Amino acid sequence: MTIIITVDIGGTQMRAAAFQRGSIEPVDMRRTPTMGEGSAFERLCVLVQSIWPEHRSVEKIVVALPGPLNPETGVIYSAPNIPGWDNFPIGTELEKRFGVPVRIGNDANLAALGEWRFGAGQGHHHLLYLTISTGIGGGVISDGRLLLGAQGLAGEVGHITVLPDGPMCGCGQRGHLEALASGPAIVRYVEEQIAAGTPSLLKELGKITARDVSEAAGQGDELSIHALSRAGAFIGDALASLVHLFNPTAVIFGGGVSFSGDFLLKHVKESLNKNLMDQSYLRDLTIAQAALGDNAGLMGALALGLLPDN
Amino acid sequence: MTIIITVDIGGTQMRAAAFQRGSIEPVDMRRTPTMGEGSAFERLCVLVQSIWPEHRSVEKIVVALPGPLNPETGVIYSAPNIPGWDNFPIGTELEKRFGVPVRIGNDANLAALGEWRFGAGQGHHHLLYLTISTGIGGGVISDGRLLLGAQGLAGEVGHITVLPDGPMCGCGQRGHLEALASGPAIVRYVEEQIAAGTPSLLKELGKITARDVSEAAGQGDELSIHALSRAGAFIGDALASLVHLFNPTAVIFGGGVSFSGDFLLKHVKESLNKNLMDQSYLRDLTIAQAALGDNAGLMGALALGLLPDN
Repeated sequence: MTIIITVDIGGTQMRAAAFQRGSIEPVDMRRTPTMGEGSAFERLCVLVQSIWPEHRSVEKIVVALPGPLNPETGVIYSAPNIPGWDNFPIGTELEKRFGVPVRIGNDANLAALGEWRFGAGQGHHHLLYLTISTGIGGGVISDGRLLLGAQGLAGEVGHITVLPDGPMCGCGQRGHLEALASGPAIVRYVEEQIAAGTPSLLKELGKITARDVSEAAGQGDELSIHALSRAGAFIGDALASLVHLFNPTAVIFGGGVSFSGDFLLKHVKESLNKNLMDQSYLRDLTIAQAALGDNAGLMGALALGLLPDN
Repeated sequence: MTIIITVDIGGTQMRAAAFQRGSIEPVDMRRTPTMGEGSAFERLCVLVQSIWPEHRSVEKIVVALPGPLNPETGVIYSAPNIPGWDNFPIGTELEKRFGVPVRIGNDANLAALGEWRFGAGQGHHHLLYLTISTGIGGGVISDGRLLLGAQGLAGEVGHITVLPDGPMCGCGQRGHLEALASGPAIVRYVEEQIAAGTPSLLKELGKITARDVSEAAGQGDELSIHALSRAGAFIGDALASLVHLFNPTAVIFGGGVSFSGDFLLKHVKESLNKNLMDQSYLRDLTIAQAALGDNAGLMGALALGLLPDN
């Protein structure tokens, strides 16, 4: 059996897995050191070389990348934290180096594909995936197909406007979901409220993280509980719009923030219900946590690799 | 050549056209009187009977319907203004009556399909269609396929939340695009402003329509100009979210309100630009007026009829 090599490129680390066609258990997994020598592309090549099987042929390489890209042309438009990867034809460069076909995909899009094929979304033909962590990303499966859009830029669920003229988003515009409900947005809100005099268990902490907020909520901290419910309500507002647009049967939440459990999700659901034009949208709608965890990118890349090439 | 009969069911009238496969010029067109005798279904049957060709065989009937429906099962969930059409299996009933296959579609979805196949969206594989009139509806073509969602309820572009806790929408929820930028929403805003003392040419008019607002804007009426620019800005806010989700190459505007021209569209574009996370989305993006006018429903039904049955 031939091998599919998948790579997940994160902000600080790259991970690779080798899969035998027909199995979802990797035959090998490798990772780069968190701080490597050389350019990002060289480190990627060393990683792929290290996992290249000795006695098996490699069918293709599939790479999950952070940032907007064009899956048709194999060009990544920009990668946060990776110098030199603006409009970088990573697909062609890897093909030149390794002599096998290369496919690339946005990591959140691929995580959607992974959850659909192997995770919490199995059996659903219409699925939304949202990952809520440092940013908010996602992917949409409609009628069994990943929506990519004309240039591969579709599915940017974090950049729906939920509060016109609201806080500044990482993308430079205002009021997007990511600016209101991502981990950093939740932390910023908590810090603002503490600065304004709201009491909180987190007051004496130096640098607050989204995980701190989640833990403080678990200890009954009212500000933290409120901050998570507020973020959940914004996510629910956006989710109602998404449900009106895509009429899915599954909504899957990934990313660290979504593990705040009902401090967040209960308010997501309340706000979804409050905004829906018709309760029919809730018929057969499952809302679930992602199942693949840190492996979502690698498994999503495998799912892409298993799709027939056009 | 066989005949495809298409029907467009509006609030006050039903229209039918008979097309020969291979031609987009109807061989016959008929309409019901605006106020007919008998039940809506009986009037529909009389209309179809009246256009049934004498010496040709009918291949299928395709019906464009106002309201949410399931194109798979042929059931319309509810039709505003048509008593008795809640959860009505119109597809099956018509098949029983006429003995040929029947397909049904939401009229705004079908208008999207019609503009894509025959109108302003030809050649685009990723297209958004928005119709702005009494309500706001639309349809999405992604990678050459109409998005329907699990129950046929996708593409409800008028029910994106653009102003949380904003004015009440016709659907019973708050702050949806339709509640802020449809014809009645524009009129309501103008009436509120006049009641609050804002001067306007429209002040002496009894009942104001969206067309009056558009005409008054053309005559320099500042309140009307402002009301249209305000609606345009909300449409642009929503459009930015849609563009982030679907990454289309064409956005087509239909419906009477969109004929307010730049009083509206200029502000749509400004607000779109203001909200976009990346200017890449504007590359190759065409924004255009719909081309099919009143025939959008009939032509969209033809487009659906010409699609291969699954």
